[in-house]
Amino acid sequence: MADLAEEDAMRRTQIGSLFAEGRITEVRRRLADLHSADIADLLDKLDEADEKLRLYALLEPDVASDVIRDVGDTSRDIILEHLSDDRLAEVVERLDTDDATDLIGGLPHERRGTVLDQASPETRREVEDLLAYPPDTAGGIMKKEVAAVTVGSTVAEVIAQIRARADIYHDIHNVFVIDFRGHLVGVIPLRRLILADTGIPVEQVMDTDMISIPVDLDQEHAAQRFEKYDLLSVPVVDPIGRLVGRITIDDIVDVIAEEATEDILALGGLGLEAARPMTAMSAIRVRLPWLGLNLLTATAGAATVALFEETIATLAIAAAFMNIVAIQGGNAGVQTMTLIVRGLALGEIEGKDAGRLLGRELLTALANGAVLGLVSAAMAYAWTGNAQLSVVLGIALLVNLLIAAVLGSLVPIGLKKVGVDPAVSSNVFVTAGTDILGFFVFLGMLALLI
Amino acid sequence: MADLAEEDAMRRTQIGSLFAEGRITEVRRRLADLHSADIADLLDKLDEADEKLRLYALLEPDVASDVIRDVGDTSRDIILEHLSDDRLAEVVERLDTDDATDLIGGLPHERRGTVLDQASPETRREVEDLLAYPPDTAGGIMKKEVAAVTVGSTVAEVIAQIRARADIYHDIHNVFVIDFRGHLVGVIPLRRLILADTGIPVEQVMDTDMISIPVDLDQEHAAQRFEKYDLLSVPVVDPIGRLVGRITIDDIVDVIAEEATEDILALGGLGLEAARPMTAMSAIRVRLPWLGLNLLTATAGAATVALFEETIATLAIAAAFMNIVAIQGGNAGVQTMTLIVRGLALGEIEGKDAGRLLGRELLTALANGAVLGLVSAAMAYAWTGNAQLSVVLGIALLVNLLIAAVLGSLVPIGLKKVGVDPAVSSNVFVTAGTDILGFFVFLGMLALLI
Repeated sequence: MADLAEEDAMRRTQIGSLFAEGRITEVRRRLADLHSADIADLLDKLDEADEKLRLYALLEPDVASDVIRDVGDTSRDIILEHLSDDRLAEVVERLDTDDATDLIGGLPHERRGTVLDQASPETRREVEDLLAYPPDTAGGIMKKEVAAVTVGSTVAEVIAQIRARADIYHDIHNVFVIDFRGHLVGVIPLRRLILADTGIPVEQVMDTDMISIPVDLDQEHAAQRFEKYDLLSVPVVDPIGRLVGRITIDDIVDVIAEEATEDILALGGLGLEAARPMTAMSAIRVRLPWLGLNLLTATAGAATVALFEETIATLAIAAAFMNIVAIQGGNAGVQTMTLIVRGLALGEIEGKDAGRLLGRELLTALANGAVLGLVSAAMAYAWTGNAQLSVVLGIALLVNLLIAAVLGSLVPIGLKKVGVDPAVSSNVFVTAGTDILGFFVFLGMLALLI
Repeated sequence: MADLAEEDAMRRTQIGSLFAEGRITEVRRRLADLHSADIADLLDKLDEADEKLRLYALLEPDVASDVIRDVGDTSRDIILEHLSDDRLAEVVERLDTDDATDLIGGLPHERRGTVLDQASPETRREVEDLLAYPPDTAGGIMKKEVAAVTVGSTVAEVIAQIRARADIYHDIHNVFVIDFRGHLVGVIPLRRLILADTGIPVEQVMDTDMISIPVDLDQEHAAQRFEKYDLLSVPVVDPIGRLVGRITIDDIVDVIAEEATEDILALGGLGLEAARPMTAMSAIRVRLPWLGLNLLTATAGAATVALFEETIATLAIAAAFMNIVAIQGGNAGVQTMTLIVRGLALGEIEGKDAGRLLGRELLTALANGAVLGLVSAAMAYAWTGNAQLSVVLGIALLVNLLIAAVLGSLVPIGLKKVGVDPAVSSNVFVTAGTDILGFFVFLGMLALLI
C-alpha cells in the first residue's frame, strides 16, 4: 500500500530534480506520462512561485486546464494571477462548465467579465448562468453538459448524437429524455443503449421513476441522496421540472469530504479556511477569535470559582478536586454533543427524537455518573481522609454528568432550530456550561457544609 | 430542499399507518413504488422487531435482497436472525458479491457455512474468496463481478458478451482487458464501446495507462485515489498483476463517510460503534472507558494542583485563575491537533513536514499567547488589583500556549509513527498535558513569588 504513494513521491522527486537542473526536454517528456492530478501535486510541492509558473508554462493546453482544476489553492492563486486573460479564457473553454464556473467565481469581480469576454458566447452564457446559483446548492455544483434527447427519438438517433458530441460527453453515464417543453420525463443508463435494438423509440428503454434533484437543494442534502440511493449522475431540475443540469458523483465525493472536514474542524474550534495551507499570520487570524471567545467563558468559570474564595481559603485541596468535576462533565458533554451533531448532519435525528434521545442520555449519565462518582469519592477519601469532601465530590460529579447530558443533547438541537450550525457553535456552550455549573455545584455544596 | 425529505417522511408515515391498520394489499401496492433505500428507512423507523419482520415478509425476493443491504444494523440483525438459511442463501445469491460477503461476514461463524452450503457453487467460491481479505482493504470492499475480455476480442464480441450477462453487469462502467494469463492490460470505458466500430479489436480502443489498485491496499488509501483521480470504477489486481475484482465509487462513498465519522467520533472520545443506534446499556459500555481514562488524567491534574496546596491556601483567588491557563492551553492544543490529525488522515502531512509545521505552530502560539496573555493579565489586574498575580497569569498563559503547540503537533505525528491511530488517542494526551503543565507553570511561578 505504501508502494503506490512511494512510487508517486519518487517520480515527483525525479522530475523535481530534472527541473532544478534545467533539463526541460526531459521534464516535458516525463510530464506527458503523468496524470493531471499528479502534475498538480508536483506543482503544489514546489516552494517558489516562480518555479510553479515555469513548470506550468511547460504544459500542453489540455493538460494545463486539468491541472489548474486539480492544484491546491495557493498554487492556483499564483497561476491565475500571472495568466493573461485570453490564456485563462482558453482554459475556461476547455474545462467542464462546473469547473469553469468555480475558476471564474474565484477571480476578483472586475476580472470575471474581461475573461468571459474572450470566451465563446455559449461558454459565457453557461458560466454566467451557473454563477447565479449559491455555491453550496445543487445549482452551484452542477454542470451544464447533459446528454438530452427529446421523446420520440430512436436509440439509433441517440447514439448518433452522442457520437457527434463525443468531446463534450466525455463522462456521461446516462442520457436524459425531455419533452418538447424541456421537462425531464425519463433517463436511459448508457449500458442499456448498448443492449437495446437501435430502431425502437427512447420511451421504450427509459426509466421514468428516476431520481432528480431540485436546483436549489443544499449540497449536503444532495450528497445524502447520492449516498442513500448509490447514484452516479443525477439530473437537476428547476422548480417547474425542466432539466437544467447534471451533478456527477466525483463532485459529490468532494462535497462529502468538504462537509466532513468542516465538521471535524468545527469540533476543534476552527473554520473551514483553517484547512488551507497557511502562514502563521493567517493561522493567528483564524484561531484567535475562538481562543478569545473561550477566554471569556473561562473567565466566567473563574468568576464562579471566585464566588467561593472563602471556601477555598478554608479548604485549599478543594481547588484540586473541583477540576475533576468540571473536566468529567466537559468530556461527557462533548461525547453526547458529538453524536447529536453528527446525527443532525446526516439527517438521522429529527426534532421529534429529542425527547427519546434526552431520556437515553440521562440514563447513560446516571449510570456512568454513579460509577465515576463512587470511584472518585473512594479515591479522594483514600487521598485526603476527608469524608465530607469525598461524598461532595462523588455527588457533584454525578450531577455534572446529568447536566452534561442535558446540554450535550439540547444545545445542538436548539442551535439547529434557530438556524445556527450546531457543528460550529455547540462545543463552546456545552463545555462552558459544564465548567461553570460543575464548579458551582461542587463548591456550593462544600460551602454549605463547611 | 426540505420538500424531498418531507415528502419521504409523509410517504413513510402513510405506509406506516396503513400497515398498522392491517391494510396489507394497499401496503404491498405502495411498497412497489418505493426505492429499496426508502423501504429500508421505513423498516428502520418501526419500533418493534415483530413489525419489522412482518413488513419484511411482504417484499418481493429481489427487493428483499436490496433492502437487507440498505437497512440499519439493528433491523438487519433482527431480520437475519429470523430468516431461514435457505431464504438467506437466496438473498446472498441475488446480491452483488461485495454486499453478499458483508452479509455473510456479519453472521456468527457457525452459520456462515450452513448458509453458503445452500448457495450456488460459484457464489460460494466467490464469497469465500472475498471473506479471506481483511474488511478494511481493497480486497475487503471489492466485488467479483467484472466485465473482462481477453486481448484479441473484437468490439462486437465484447458487446455480445455484455448482452449475454446483462443481469450480472447491471452497474458496469468499464470493460477490462486481460491477457491469457489473467494479467490486466487495458480498460475500455463503456462510452467508447458505443462510439467504436464493431469490427476492430479491443487493443485499438483500450486505454493502457489505467489506474489499478493492489488488493491489499488500505481502504482509506483506495478512497484517496478515487478522490484524487475522479474515478468511478477501478480494477483490483493481485501482487503479480492479475485482475481479481473491481471497486466502485458507491462503496468508496461509504468508506469516505465511515472514515470521516470515525475521525469525528474519535475527536469526541468515542469509537465508531457509538454511531450505531443503541440502548442506554450499550451507550454506557461504549463511553465509560473513555471517561474512566479521563478521570485518571484529571486526577493527575488534581495531584499537580495539590502540590501547591499552601500557595492556594495563601491566595485562594489563584484557584479561580489557574483554570484559565489550563483551558486556554487545552483549546489551543486541540486546534493544532485537529489540523494535524486531519492532515495526516488525508495524507497531506508527511513525517518530514514536522519541523516546518512545528515552527509555524510555535509562531502562531507566540502571537496568540502574547495577545491573550496581555488581555487576561489586564482583566485579572482590574479584578483583583494584584499585579504579581496578573503578570504570572499572563506569562503562564503564553507559556501554556507554546506547550500546546508542541503537544498538538508532535503527539499525533508521534502516535502515527508508532502505529497508533492519532485520531483516536491524541486528544487525551494533548489535553491532559496542557492541564497538568498549565497548572504547574502558573502555580509554580506563584509559589516562587509569594
